[in-house]
Amino acid sequence: MQSQQELSSFFNETRTQSELICSFLETEDYVVQPIVDVSPPKWHLGHTTWFFEEFVLKPHQKNYKLFDDNSAYVFNSYYESVGDKVMRTNRGNLSRPTVTWVYEYRQYVSKAMQQFLATGKLSAEILSLIEIGCHHEKQHQELLYTDIKYILGNNPLFPKYNDQFKGHPIQDFKKEWLDIAEGLYEIGHKTDDFCYDNELGLHKAYLPEYQISNKLVTNAEFMEFIEDSGYNQVLLWHAEAWDWINENNIKAPFYWHKIDGEWHNYTLNGLKPVTPEAPVAHVSYYEAFAFAQWKNLRLPTEFEWEAAQEYFNWGSRWEWTESAYSPYPGYSKAPGALGEYNGKFMVNQKVLRGGSVATSEKHTRYTYRNFFHPNLRWQFTGFRLAK
Amino acid sequence: MQSQQELSSFFNETRTQSELICSFLETEDYVVQPIVDVSPPKWHLGHTTWFFEEFVLKPHQKNYKLFDDNSAYVFNSYYESVGDKVMRTNRGNLSRPTVTWVYEYRQYVSKAMQQFLATGKLSAEILSLIEIGCHHEKQHQELLYTDIKYILGNNPLFPKYNDQFKGHPIQDFKKEWLDIAEGLYEIGHKTDDFCYDNELGLHKAYLPEYQISNKLVTNAEFMEFIEDSGYNQVLLWHAEAWDWINENNIKAPFYWHKIDGEWHNYTLNGLKPVTPEAPVAHVSYYEAFAFAQWKNLRLPTEFEWEAAQEYFNWGSRWEWTESAYSPYPGYSKAPGALGEYNGKFMVNQKVLRGGSVATSEKHTRYTYRNFFHPNLRWQFTGFRLAK
Amino acid sequence: MQSQQELSSFFNETRTQSELICSFLETEDYVVQPIVDVSPPKWHLGHTTWFFEEFVLKPHQKNYKLFDDNSAYVFNSYYESVGDKVMRTNRGNLSRPTVTWVYEYRQYVSKAMQQFLATGKLSAEILSLIEIGCHHEKQHQELLYTDIKYILGNNPLFPKYNDQFKGHPIQDFKKEWLDIAEGLYEIGHKTDDFCYDNELGLHKAYLPEYQISNKLVTNAEFMEFIEDSGYNQVLLWHAEAWDWINENNIKAPFYWHKIDGEWHNYTLNGLKPVTPEAPVAHVSYYEAFAFAQWKNLRLPTEFEWEAAQEYFNWGSRWEWTESAYSPYPGYSKAPGALGEYNGKFMVNQKVLRGGSVATSEKHTRYTYRNFFHPNLRWQFTGFRLAK
Amino acid sequence: MQSQQELSSFFNETRTQSELICSFLETEDYVVQPIVDVSPPKWHLGHTTWFFEEFVLKPHQKNYKLFDDNSAYVFNSYYESVGDKVMRTNRGNLSRPTVTWVYEYRQYVSKAMQQFLATGKLSAEILSLIEIGCHHEKQHQELLYTDIKYILGNNPLFPKYNDQFKGHPIQDFKKEWLDIAEGLYEIGHKTDDFCYDNELGLHKAYLPEYQISNKLVTNAEFMEFIEDSGYNQVLLWHAEAWDWINENNIKAPFYWHKIDGEWHNYTLNGLKPVTPEAPVAHVSYYEAFAFAQWKNLRLPTEFEWEAAQEYFNWGSRWEWTESAYSPYPGYSKAPGALGEYNGKFMVNQKVLRGGSVATSEKHTRYTYRNFFHPNLRWQFTGFRLAK
Repeated sequence: MQSQQELSSFFNETRTQSELICSFLETEDYVVQPIVDVSPPKWHLGHTTWFFEEFVLKPHQKNYKLFDDNSAYVFNSYYESVGDKVMRTNRGNLSRPTVTWVYEYRQYVSKAMQQFLATGKLSAEILSLIEIGCHHEKQHQELLYTDIKYILGNNPLFPKYNDQFKGHPIQDFKKEWLDIAEGLYEIGHKTDDFCYDNELGLHKAYLPEYQISNKLVTNAEFMEFIEDSGYNQVLLWHAEAWDWINENNIKAPFYWHKIDGEWHNYTLNGLKPVTPEAPVAHVSYYEAFAFAQWKNLRLPTEFEWEAAQEYFNWGSRWEWTESAYSPYPGYSKAPGALGEYNGKFMVNQKVLRGGSVATSEKHTRYTYRNFFHPNLRWQFTGFRLAK
Repeated sequence: MQSQQELSSFFNETRTQSELICSFLETEDYVVQPIVDVSPPKWHLGHTTWFFEEFVLKPHQKNYKLFDDNSAYVFNSYYESVGDKVMRTNRGNLSRPTVTWVYEYRQYVSKAMQQFLATGKLSAEILSLIEIGCHHEKQHQELLYTDIKYILGNNPLFPKYNDQFKGHPIQDFKKEWLDIAEGLYEIGHKTDDFCYDNELGLHKAYLPEYQISNKLVTNAEFMEFIEDSGYNQVLLWHAEAWDWINENNIKAPFYWHKIDGEWHNYTLNGLKPVTPEAPVAHVSYYEAFAFAQWKNLRLPTEFEWEAAQEYFNWGSRWEWTESAYSPYPGYSKAPGALGEYNGKFMVNQKVLRGGSVATSEKHTRYTYRNFFHPNLRWQFTGFRLAK
Repeated sequence: MQSQQELSSFFNETRTQSELICSFLETEDYVVQPIVDVSPPKWHLGHTTWFFEEFVLKPHQKNYKLFDDNSAYVFNSYYESVGDKVMRTNRGNLSRPTVTWVYEYRQYVSKAMQQFLATGKLSAEILSLIEIGCHHEKQHQELLYTDIKYILGNNPLFPKYNDQFKGHPIQDFKKEWLDIAEGLYEIGHKTDDFCYDNELGLHKAYLPEYQISNKLVTNAEFMEFIEDSGYNQVLLWHAEAWDWINENNIKAPFYWHKIDGEWHNYTLNGLKPVTPEAPVAHVSYYEAFAFAQWKNLRLPTEFEWEAAQEYFNWGSRWEWTESAYSPYPGYSKAPGALGEYNGKFMVNQKVLRGGSVATSEKHTRYTYRNFFHPNLRWQFTGFRLAK
Repeated sequence: MQSQQELSSFFNETRTQSELICSFLETEDYVVQPIVDVSPPKWHLGHTTWFFEEFVLKPHQKNYKLFDDNSAYVFNSYYESVGDKVMRTNRGNLSRPTVTWVYEYRQYVSKAMQQFLATGKLSAEILSLIEIGCHHEKQHQELLYTDIKYILGNNPLFPKYNDQFKGHPIQDFKKEWLDIAEGLYEIGHKTDDFCYDNELGLHKAYLPEYQISNKLVTNAEFMEFIEDSGYNQVLLWHAEAWDWINENNIKAPFYWHKIDGEWHNYTLNGLKPVTPEAPVAHVSYYEAFAFAQWKNLRLPTEFEWEAAQEYFNWGSRWEWTESAYSPYPGYSKAPGALGEYNGKFMVNQKVLRGGSVATSEKHTRYTYRNFFHPNLRWQFTGFRLAK
């Protein structure tokens, strides 16, 4: 647990970072929502602010005056237990509140929070709430990157976001199989640093002997799969995956375009030729699984990943695992609205481990459990193989 | 036909008016598209400009340099025969080009058009194209009003557009039935002033004797229909209408909200109590028809409306008629892309006559044939009765 | 109006005919409903019987005992005002009541009706109800043919219905344009023979001079349209039609299959090569309209058709007209449930005139107004051209 | 592994049982498909027969003559790698082949199989194929019961299937928590008796100490959950489950109807009052999970179930577990078409353990892994709790 003073810095640094990410945008970019999974950037900025107002200032800061009585309504998200909310599909239809309003709202709440953190000693419970709020905002920072990428990368003009963003780091080391011995491994969060409730319930898992690759699958390898008609071989795919690729006419990772016979992909630096040696990104679990089938290999489980992670580099791609997202033994969700947070998604989602080039500093760790439906591709998702 | 000089003024006045309408908007308001029938205001501004560039400047102005090679792609609309187009459902997902870009594009094209109109004598064919372009832009001015109303009126904050807009004029005269004698009436456009091709084909229609109201149906009358459970009486409704009101849970005109037992409606001046004496607006053909059934009366045909129009006031509401939109005898559509304009919608739409408080000056006339699917309500649509 | 005795024969003949049509079916064919517009044959047999029980016997025959208290529920159709009904989409999910039950139900009601008609003098109102019931059943006889064709023709085994059915008569006479003079024509039903309410309201219509073909468009002509890529020329099609053919991948009339380079079509005699000289069948209004555009001709209005019909042969195809289905001047629907019959469909449908090879004897006449949504093709629909 | 002679008896007994199950049906009941998950009984009868013809007789019986060249097409199911197939949604639209045809097909193939089994010594590989075919048919016998229940139970007439079927056995013993010690447990199929490939890969799993109920949750307990507004407490439900119950208006287990204030349910014996002491059936995983949340308990994992199963009775309900369906360590799917069988469904499904009153004798065992999407309810699905 961080001290109150450390937390104050952590809060400031987090708030600034969100605004830095958006500093490359035009006003119009803040507004649109091309698909339901993508939220307008101004919504992310407002929602993360609303979180501090709703869960920290409103209940705990005496005489706190809401910035605006309607804000809660517009920026509530999945918290069904906290009043009304705007339908998720409807976020991109709201031109108001304006971007200027959102920045004023941020400033107002940030200042109130800074005063709150500077005045008197706060209880451990409140500090913990604020820490959750910061991590919550860091999570939305990752979504800001990936949602901005979606918004710009699906515009027919392919505008770039920023020349400096490094999205496709090269793994310049030799590919090897790492041997992991059979045994009982401890799984879950151990220290008293921050973690989400779904990492708790430290427990043992028995793993038979296995091997896991020290490298993520690369664009070059994935192009071989495409060349070998991987997308047309029905036996490589789950039944649902086969329907999905056919209904959506999927023939390559998301953001890939074949131009004059050469594969290009939209990156936050604009439309570029695909870098062969970089780890593949923007693939669904379905594609990761089919690729593994094609290689006669498989994806690791989340336990295998966690037990082996100290022996390989990770952090540029969220890595799909074979594990369905479900509670650890002894998991019990937090009471009330915050308890809605993780548990309610524990069905029909796959666990991803690692983190990505879009993940904020200090946000991920080796016990972190990300989760998405198996068809989603707008995150920087990749995978490594096991056998 | 206007002279070249008159047309030049007409052009300038038209272009200025579009920008005046948008001068009350925030940047964010220009971007969103809450439903497929509503286009983002910046799209209207760009599309009307593209029309002049694509159909006038590109083919007819020597050495004309396009403002930007991609603009045509983004602002083409239903003209399937002119290159690619952005899917209509996708207009609200495009944050770029920006609003600033669109205004620069407008200025560039307006200036080029002004020079074109100022230099040398243009052929009748070109003048006619420009006139069509101006009327096309006026048509989009009406859509600007109604689309802005939709965007703001469906925002949970109900922001107002502008205090000055007069949307609900009162008909302060006595209701009377006008008797129209049986006979052969001339229908269609007669003069050589501008009109759309769907008004041409001047022809005779035989009408039996009928009566038509000198007044539009009012909000007060429509509230009686609601009070009498009009929305629950199946026998008043077309089969498709019945499905439509039930699937969409329709219980009042669009923009109406019952607040503390009193009917309010969103207007361009903000959320206000309904004005009883004003003509009802934002009703579908289905609702107009059901109301008429409830009164044991009927809607006029478009020919009845045209034959009687000189005896009553019109112009504050587009008026639903019983007539399906189909070609006049002798109608032949213009060749090429412009010919796509009206003919391709001549199925499953109802004719509306009149004009509305949102219609631009000099845009409508008594032979003008507007048309919409029978369920649409975002225009200022009302109706009068006949028997 | 027929006498009571004539009506009794008419009733018997009608009832027998429905059963004759179904005598070529297997039990399983009576049950399925492949699309919502097609009803299971056993439903037609039950529904036409329910009509007599519900509207004649139940209210007018003293001490009449219902065959089964649940029958009304299962066989009610669009009569929203008469109790519950089984959702139209759900008819093909009901294995019970069985076919045997339906035939017993028919026999029970037919016998009760025969006794009712044989005993005492019935009022004109009741006789009229019975006459409507017979015509209603004749209408369903046509649907029996076309629904059976749909059920068998969409089975991958293409079973034939009956070798004797003559679906594709050849027009062995010369094609000519018939000149019809300008003038006022009387439209609507004149005699006191049976007609539907939508034919009433005898009125005058003014028609300018026009020409109409003495022949229906043939399969040979339609094949030319296909050869000339008619289905790919966007300017020939209504906007909705273009979406429709693309979404549904429509490239030929319904039931047509290209086998080894030659056009075949499923007929009630089985899968056969297309007969070039026969009138084209199973085309939508959209296709009829596009064909006319391609020829630089047009479809007649329903008034033009009625005014000219005495000069040409008709009766093998329902003929699409340009006219939208709407009430005649002076139309007023019957009160109560029977009044639901025709009026409630008077929107978004096109009028067809004539009759077809599937129409029962004495069912159609030159004032008969059939109507369908413009995309429907499972009836024997064709068209003739005008200019 | 059974001997060839044992297998021959097993085959005969299996084939007879399918026909016995259907002996209570009317011809019409064999044809309909009310939802995509339910197949027409005649399809089950044909498909299980096609399996023997396609995988045993066609490749392995010399000079075998197909009963009909089109049968494979109609009765192929999910085997994408074996020729064409009829879309699953389309099975209920096919009136042909008839029920009589299907029985003749069964007889022809059964006889050919009997001769094949009676003549000469068959290889282990072929015997294994036949054994799979029998188990495959037994699996469809369970579906026959549940699909027949769906077809009759959703008919507004609620016809009964058969008075003798025992669907709701009472657990007449005391409810107790069974304590299971922490430890490494062996999971998976051990003997050389028949099992499916998804049970193989015998492996160890570490389980912490846990408790599991000796009784299935009963109708009485589930009624308490309903009374306590369980279906309205958002925090009990997964996010997807909440959408699902609201979109589908779910307020009770499937087949339950409240009549005059009392809960009834459709059973294969007809519509009956709910038996309080019987185990609840026809609930989804979502409902099982929400019930457990409401009790502050949880569902067991499939490993917990398997490790504890020897201490409790099971077999009347398929029991939902918390485990997502995924491969055991070392799982490798069979090559070719048969390999499509289980692996392709290993995503987004939950494992069920046990068996049900509809399961055929000798079909289930304690290692058997059934799997369904978490919203499905037409099987006899129930659950027991753990903590």
